[in-house]
Amino acid sequence: MTTTEQHTIDSINFTTNDTTISDLLTRQHEISDLQALDALASWDQQTAMPTGASEVRMHQVATLQGLIHERATAPEIGSLLEQLADKVQVAPFTDADRGLYEKVKRDYDMSTKLPRELVEEMARVSSASVDAWVKARATSNFALFSPWLKRTVDLQREVADRFGYQENRYDALLNIYEPGLTVRKVEQLFEPVRAVSTTLLRRIQESGKQISTACLEQSFPVEKQMELSEKALRTIGYDFERGQLARSAHPFTTSFGAPSDVRLTVRCDEHFLQMSLMAALHEGGHGLYEQGCSPSLVRTLLANGASLGAHESQSRLWENAIGRTIPFWQGKFHILKEVFPEQFEHVDVETFVRALNKVEPSLIRVEADEVTYNLHILIRFELEKALVNGELSVDELPAAWNAKYREYLNIEPANDAEGVLQDVHWTGGFGYFPTYTLGNLYGAQILHSLQSTFPDFETRLASGDTDFVLNWLRERMHVFGAIYLPEKLIERVTGETPDPQYFVRYLTNKFEQIYGL
Amino acid sequence: MTTTEQHTIDSINFTTNDTTISDLLTRQHEISDLQALDALASWDQQTAMPTGASEVRMHQVATLQGLIHERATAPEIGSLLEQLADKVQVAPFTDADRGLYEKVKRDYDMSTKLPRELVEEMARVSSASVDAWVKARATSNFALFSPWLKRTVDLQREVADRFGYQENRYDALLNIYEPGLTVRKVEQLFEPVRAVSTTLLRRIQESGKQISTACLEQSFPVEKQMELSEKALRTIGYDFERGQLARSAHPFTTSFGAPSDVRLTVRCDEHFLQMSLMAALHEGGHGLYEQGCSPSLVRTLLANGASLGAHESQSRLWENAIGRTIPFWQGKFHILKEVFPEQFEHVDVETFVRALNKVEPSLIRVEADEVTYNLHILIRFELEKALVNGELSVDELPAAWNAKYREYLNIEPANDAEGVLQDVHWTGGFGYFPTYTLGNLYGAQILHSLQSTFPDFETRLASGDTDFVLNWLRERMHVFGAIYLPEKLIERVTGETPDPQYFVRYLTNKFEQIYGL
Repeated sequence: MTTTEQHTIDSINFTTNDTTISDLLTRQHEISDLQALDALASWDQQTAMPTGASEVRMHQVATLQGLIHERATAPEIGSLLEQLADKVQVAPFTDADRGLYEKVKRDYDMSTKLPRELVEEMARVSSASVDAWVKARATSNFALFSPWLKRTVDLQREVADRFGYQENRYDALLNIYEPGLTVRKVEQLFEPVRAVSTTLLRRIQESGKQISTACLEQSFPVEKQMELSEKALRTIGYDFERGQLARSAHPFTTSFGAPSDVRLTVRCDEHFLQMSLMAALHEGGHGLYEQGCSPSLVRTLLANGASLGAHESQSRLWENAIGRTIPFWQGKFHILKEVFPEQFEHVDVETFVRALNKVEPSLIRVEADEVTYNLHILIRFELEKALVNGELSVDELPAAWNAKYREYLNIEPANDAEGVLQDVHWTGGFGYFPTYTLGNLYGAQILHSLQSTFPDFETRLASGDTDFVLNWLRERMHVFGAIYLPEKLIERVTGETPDPQYFVRYLTNKFEQIYGL
Repeated sequence: MTTTEQHTIDSINFTTNDTTISDLLTRQHEISDLQALDALASWDQQTAMPTGASEVRMHQVATLQGLIHERATAPEIGSLLEQLADKVQVAPFTDADRGLYEKVKRDYDMSTKLPRELVEEMARVSSASVDAWVKARATSNFALFSPWLKRTVDLQREVADRFGYQENRYDALLNIYEPGLTVRKVEQLFEPVRAVSTTLLRRIQESGKQISTACLEQSFPVEKQMELSEKALRTIGYDFERGQLARSAHPFTTSFGAPSDVRLTVRCDEHFLQMSLMAALHEGGHGLYEQGCSPSLVRTLLANGASLGAHESQSRLWENAIGRTIPFWQGKFHILKEVFPEQFEHVDVETFVRALNKVEPSLIRVEADEVTYNLHILIRFELEKALVNGELSVDELPAAWNAKYREYLNIEPANDAEGVLQDVHWTGGFGYFPTYTLGNLYGAQILHSLQSTFPDFETRLASGDTDFVLNWLRERMHVFGAIYLPEKLIERVTGETPDPQYFVRYLTNKFEQIYGL
């Protein structure tokens, strides 16, 4: 055993012979088990539940979340945390112990600021909002959704006020998903991203060059697409013994006890292969992260990614930095040909990958190319911030949405279904969209490290090997779950603090090359 | 509104303006929500869960069941029950109030006799037993399962001793599933069933007549079988807006908040259509019962069947008394022809229904015909009783099983996989097999009432109508959920106390006719 291996083992194990740690773990196990059931209820709601069950399910989830809140705010947890505060900082306590202490403390501090009634009310409003959104989107009628969105805004403002903040009410919500994130920080990080995105978009549009996506727009039967998604997931190392693939209206990854049960969904368009295939690689990236966390962390809050941003770094890495490249598809093109022999009989790797990388301003975020993607996020960030700070009312939102799309992407939705109602995200709360861009920044920085570590990175990908990438990510990142805060984790993985310039360079190089700028 | 309708409405609504009732309901809602999540976890485990998740799921379910036990034994429930004991017996309290009181009291009295640790241990042993059983059955190796079965026997004996009993330890377990049921009562009820089954079997075998099942033994692709099952369920009135159909190793029905979310599974054999089709009608009968309970009972223990016996009366009614008859298939044969046009091109209704009714001693209970079915139950009953009373050890069980099959059915399993290991039921506990035969008895009695009420019963079935049956069952039985105890419910539905002679006559008439005896 090398010293690195020994160090990892020391880091990821709890000091279970300490009674404070073991008492805290016992409580964590119970809470974590209940959270897993909450995630299961949500998975079921989105993949299988009959429509007539939505009201009764709303009650079930509210009850469960109320109970989780009751358990997570037990005064005994507070006193265990007090006992640990000092002693956990030194040996024999491990990084896992300290990570647990920090995570539980964060969770406890936040949970105890929210009364149980508020938690249950949020669960009910969220659940009813999903139903309202489905109907509103189907008829492109924002008025059906707006009463619920107003309640969500009010509840989110109440949550932010109860959590507290220094500069900006929205900071309190950002901090839920990415510890320490603030509006000020987001704006600093996003400025170079905005600049590179708009510049590249302008240069591409001015070049007048067009990429054809014809090879992706053939007829692809849905069952075959699911077969391809499964093959793509298997080939990058996703473990179906501890996972599952399903379809849902909006793709997502969830776990009910990582690393043992981590599932994901894709959605399919019969005439556009990109949607399911890239969703598989994206969600697969999330899935690999959770399947890779150390089994020693099971049934704790640490059996998870370090943050949403850290999570998104993995999904975007597999989807874009690997999954939208020629070397990767040189190594894996046979999978495509196996499932769709006729459709890809006359298509070569270069044509296919070019199609996957077509840049075009579009209305739907989840279908956006890498150049315009972060502008969608920027729009959400600015709108959420304005809603939470009372600078924008829900009634003004659709017009504000359309104006931002005109401003940043020079296009405008024909109706609210392809605009403000396009996805389900605003039924749950605010503050996590910025983590999507953070993920892109982290991902590019991690890619740079991978390329430095493996000078033959592209050759190996082209030979069909991706295990070397997964193994490197596992050892350096996945295995630690949420033991380290995201910025510290990125530093451990890449040797540097997070720096948006890696993304700026990645994006510029990639699209200069693709579009021959 | 007729007086009957008014009476029903009075019966099925709670007196929610009484604070004792409303407090009890609040507690019921919480418990019922958690039980729904427990059922969801079990559904998922049997229809979707990846194999690697079994250990973590075991913990989750144990935690949840421990919590349910904690909530169900809250002293506040005891004091609410005391407050209600006398006053609930008179107006303005309703049958629903009294049903709730009785059901909660039964549940509270039982739950408070079991310590939480025992409940959690039972959950863990049950979960691990399922895994052990899967492996044992796959290799026909009873030794892999027997250590777990021994623990189950010990736990069941402990439960029985804690519940208490008058005459027979097994009575305590029977009473869990069918209130008031005892060994003495089962033996009285089963004696005429045993007699008619063995007599009919002997007469059929002596007649030398053979029925061909060739039409059921063609090639039937699994997806097509699922399509047929769905059509069969729709045609008998099962509501997919509040339900779902899936596949599992062992067919079952479950609900996560009846009447809004009631789901079922079938299993398919590509070369034997009967398995999935009859499972669909059987589980459909269970499903119709739960979908028919009054919405006023939602999120309470009353949103369920009156007992397992009452439940089985519905499944066996739709499977056998309706689904294995010529009139029903005269009305519905077009469904078969739509899904399997080639396979049924040259098959007529009579040939098909005869094939569904072939009598032949067989090893597998769930595939047994109506004549031999109850002999399988009798065997389980006798073996369970002996295990619980310490008259038979787990090590002696396989030999005892084989001996009983030789005695009652004159056949013997070639190995334990088709013998004692054939199904998953002994991973969960003992005492409910006798309810399967009770269900057959109740079902025959209900059929008799239906035929008396509708002199044109067969003509209407033959015209394709089954709604008249469902509506009659809904109004008289389903809508009441578990408000009434099973014997009282059967009396309300049929006008008579349960009487096994209806089943004896039903079985004799049916098979004398089919075999021309």
